Amino acid sequence: MKDERWNNALYKTEARNDTGLEGYAYVPDGIVVKTSSPLNQHPGSNPEQLLGMSLATCLKSTLEAIEKERGIEHSAQVHVQIAFIGERAKYQFLVNARIRVPKVDLATAEDMVKEAEGRCPVSQLLSGSANYTVETVEEF
Amino acid sequence: MKDERWNNALYKTEARNDTGLEGYAYVPDGIVVKTSSPLNQHPGSNPEQLLGMSLATCLKSTLEAIEKERGIEHSAQVHVQIAFIGERAKYQFLVNARIRVPKVDLATAEDMVKEAEGRCPVSQLLSGSANYTVETVEEF
Repeated sequence: MKDERWNNALYKTEARNDTGLEGYAYVPDGIVVKTSSPLNQHPGSNPEQLLGMSLATCLKSTLEAIEKERGIEHSAQVHVQIAFIGERAKYQFLVNARIRVPKVDLATAEDMVKEAEGRCPVSQLLSGSANYTVETVEEF
Repeated sequence: MKDERWNNALYKTEARNDTGLEGYAYVPDGIVVKTSSPLNQHPGSNPEQLLGMSLATCLKSTLEAIEKERGIEHSAQVHVQIAFIGERAKYQFLVNARIRVPKVDLATAEDMVKEAEGRCPVSQLLSGSANYTVETVEEF
């Protein structure tokens, strides 16, 4: 089923959930994360937070590369907000990434953020959704 | 900047990375995950695994709801494969979700998977990308 690109991957991994939302997500021989519904108070993370951490780390990593390429001190910070909206069988997530690059002026930060938005692989995957937005901010 | 839908959210959360790919992702007052590049052997998870766990848990949770609605015993399992491909400044992720529903026949499983693919919020966010695929399998 897979396209040829899988064969030339730099890295492959697998993540699983066999137990449920009130259960755990895991990587075989790797991380295990207890999960729970965002709508109860049970301990655990949830798909919203896991997606948010993935995107935040991906954007931050891409911004680190861009800072390095431009000879700028690393300073970018990425905060991702996620909202769970809708009703049964019609749920959606909203994802808003807020990015601050304190070591540069706002125009430069906006240019870097635009570049990161296009280069970060997680951002690319979300870019077809109207529910995904990216903001450059001077202060959180 | 935000659309009105944020105001009626069932749940909101925030995830951050201020430190880098060799650093940590976290939720304020919540989970902290050590992160590292997938291309070295440092301990830590990475954006690929965090995204995979988010999608696996979201699809599993949606399948649990579908199983309940159809009066079927919970049995769905979700394994998400992620590949990191490309070259500097042109990196991409490939995401393939493999789903098994052992308590039903393959045709029923395929119908449930199709429904879950459209209902799971993380799947919806990825659905605009040609790099995202979903498979129904009889065995992993």
